[in-house]
Amino acid sequence: MTGRARLVVIGGDAGGMSAAAQARRLQDGDALEIVVLEQGRDTSFSACGIPYWIGDLVGSREDLIARTPAEHEKRGITVHTGTRAQAVDLDAGTVTAADGRRFDYDTLLIATGGRPTRPPITGLDAPGVYGVHRLDDGAAIRAAIDELPTDRTPKAIVMGGGYIGLEMAEVLQTRGLDVSVVLADPLPMGLLDADMGERVCVAMRAMGFTVHTDQAVREVLTGADGRACGVRTDEGTYDADLVVLGLGMGPEARLAERAGLGIGVTGGIDVDATMRSRTHANVFAAGDCVQTYHQLTGEPAHVALGTHANKQGRVAGSVIAGRPARFAGVLGTALTKVGTLEIGRTGLCTSQADAAGFDSRTEVIEATTRAGYYPGAEDIAVKLVTESASGRLLGGQVVGGQGAGKRIDVLAAAVWAGMTADELAGSDLSYAPPFSPTYDAVAVAARVISRAERG
Amino acid sequence: MTGRARLVVIGGDAGGMSAAAQARRLQDGDALEIVVLEQGRDTSFSACGIPYWIGDLVGSREDLIARTPAEHEKRGITVHTGTRAQAVDLDAGTVTAADGRRFDYDTLLIATGGRPTRPPITGLDAPGVYGVHRLDDGAAIRAAIDELPTDRTPKAIVMGGGYIGLEMAEVLQTRGLDVSVVLADPLPMGLLDADMGERVCVAMRAMGFTVHTDQAVREVLTGADGRACGVRTDEGTYDADLVVLGLGMGPEARLAERAGLGIGVTGGIDVDATMRSRTHANVFAAGDCVQTYHQLTGEPAHVALGTHANKQGRVAGSVIAGRPARFAGVLGTALTKVGTLEIGRTGLCTSQADAAGFDSRTEVIEATTRAGYYPGAEDIAVKLVTESASGRLLGGQVVGGQGAGKRIDVLAAAVWAGMTADELAGSDLSYAPPFSPTYDAVAVAARVISRAERG
Repeated sequence: MTGRARLVVIGGDAGGMSAAAQARRLQDGDALEIVVLEQGRDTSFSACGIPYWIGDLVGSREDLIARTPAEHEKRGITVHTGTRAQAVDLDAGTVTAADGRRFDYDTLLIATGGRPTRPPITGLDAPGVYGVHRLDDGAAIRAAIDELPTDRTPKAIVMGGGYIGLEMAEVLQTRGLDVSVVLADPLPMGLLDADMGERVCVAMRAMGFTVHTDQAVREVLTGADGRACGVRTDEGTYDADLVVLGLGMGPEARLAERAGLGIGVTGGIDVDATMRSRTHANVFAAGDCVQTYHQLTGEPAHVALGTHANKQGRVAGSVIAGRPARFAGVLGTALTKVGTLEIGRTGLCTSQADAAGFDSRTEVIEATTRAGYYPGAEDIAVKLVTESASGRLLGGQVVGGQGAGKRIDVLAAAVWAGMTADELAGSDLSYAPPFSPTYDAVAVAARVISRAERG
Repeated sequence: MTGRARLVVIGGDAGGMSAAAQARRLQDGDALEIVVLEQGRDTSFSACGIPYWIGDLVGSREDLIARTPAEHEKRGITVHTGTRAQAVDLDAGTVTAADGRRFDYDTLLIATGGRPTRPPITGLDAPGVYGVHRLDDGAAIRAAIDELPTDRTPKAIVMGGGYIGLEMAEVLQTRGLDVSVVLADPLPMGLLDADMGERVCVAMRAMGFTVHTDQAVREVLTGADGRACGVRTDEGTYDADLVVLGLGMGPEARLAERAGLGIGVTGGIDVDATMRSRTHANVFAAGDCVQTYHQLTGEPAHVALGTHANKQGRVAGSVIAGRPARFAGVLGTALTKVGTLEIGRTGLCTSQADAAGFDSRTEVIEATTRAGYYPGAEDIAVKLVTESASGRLLGGQVVGGQGAGKRIDVLAAAVWAGMTADELAGSDLSYAPPFSPTYDAVAVAARVISRAERG
């Protein structure tokens, strides 16, 4: 190739813009032209912040935008907003936009993000049913809240009990709605073991949420005006002024698939650890649209999370600009809160450990977040999963009051490093009465499970 | 030995009672008699909680007692309170109390705790000068606060800027005193690097504390009534209604030393990893009176902390009862808060890394404790120390607002496990807007220092 190469990036959010920014950091405009095609009008926004904007905890839409198209342009990245990539010709090396424009590339980075799960339910497309995916969704829900009846307590139904579902439940309650969470699963937070999910369910009910479990929504009911007015399950019919979808997120890889790019078993674009397509060497992908791998098992995984998207984009950008880099995989670490309850998980839960072929062991302990005598000490439960024979930590789960959630990072680091429960129990974790009892809950859990291992 | 053996424990606090309880758990009364000699009237109390009792955050003295002598007795441990061990005859295997009683032992466990540092300063023994070591100290300070003048703002001087000093400064301010902290050192929190200690100093001044640095107290001034009324340094004379000592804690090993037990270079009782005396095989020691070792360097260390005392006592109790156990060393992890500022450290700071012969590298980053747009996001600074060649994490320091402090545990686990900064940067730490920006501050620090290493 003579002259400068061109990198075309499809998707201007976390994965795409991290890649673009990193490539630009390492190569200037004379060596590499960078063109981003973004279907919406925003770049680099925090989808994770949308519930908090709806909950009035975040002042404005703009607060959720880390970097605008203009700011990217200033750094030498060309951004075409409102430009939806329609087709990719992998042989010709071109991307065709919905408006017919064609963009030639030397290197392509696909960052088309995630696709909210939408089961084939009658009425799901009715007005009054909202996703929580793009900033426009947040704006629509905010507008809908402003239009709610004021002569009675308005009702919301949240479909799904993953972290988006729980966060939406929290903020809708904050905004004065009577919130029901309707789950197809037996418990909220499906990536927790059942005993830990049960704690979440009990706490949510105590906080005033109605939780309907084991009830798939069969139909979204609509009123005379065509708007959603409730849902029907096999067990009942529930009214709602507002229906919100929090059913999880799969990879949005349809464009890539249509183009003929290799797709993995999870439905995400099949890339190696350098974020390069395994089927087309000049194509990279990053973010919620890719298939990644589990750091502990090496198995394919799909986890939609801004942190991974950022890291993967950075890796792709480095590699595209000629600097070696690898994405080291995921543990499925997740953290959220609902009301005053904090919930974290990392690594393998029991069913995942079983599926991965581990002979595993679990222990749960209950403790407090601070010294028992210190004001604000709240309950915390920590569950650990270890490999029976070696004592190696496979995963951890935390449910508790303020300060509980971030403890998951200690477990995430320990699992990542391959520590045994015994090593973690012996490790020098901090102690001061405002922060933990003499033994932190994490250390207690590690000690209990290593003692159990000893028999 | 025929019949049952007798374990005598000197000291009924964390180290001693953990050992006694663990030995009792593993061996019943027919096999092992356990006799504890405690000079005071309490057992198993939280010395770390004393400042918070003084600050009225803890309701009563009793709240700080985890287990009373009667509760220990119920579990088959004989406790002699008010019984001060005066001498140990290592050849005869006897302990003589101050009141003349003699206790024969087969195995001895020494848990005489720590000794507050008291420099040879005129007036230090005057009434109105208080240590913060035993519950009686707390009661004395509480009584003194009740007697303070009410027609003006009373003044307190805290000598020392370690964690006890800072905690006392906080609670005395809470109780309405005008607090000055007087330091012989250039900065508070001497186990932080100077740039991090500077952050603490600046924050303390902003919170209304007077901080006199680089000024050793030469004399405690006393009034006509003989009570302390201020201190004199080379730079000035400062009034006080109350003088509190927070100058750190050395090992209280005088009894052991007089008996002829081996003492280490730190002044603590010289024990191996099973907490057994290196010079006398039937003598164990645990808690603030022992010399332990640094997990990373293997060098002798002395760290007075309830967590270590508990763990060491448990190890000693196990070994005494015939079950193998080892104490795995310390990283010097410490966590405290002063007002709204949280301060944590683990592993080696720069000067310690130098002293240990590491070619080290440091980086400091500034971030926020939550997503920048989320309410309550506060500043956090994270400093990392790595070995230059390998990138291995040697230590970390954290200073920041609510939620900052406990992040030190992620670093403590990572240092303990021997992770490199690059590994930590790649690890799957949690993200959700109420808990961190997309990259947690710890991950940002790890990434920055590994990039720096790459050159």
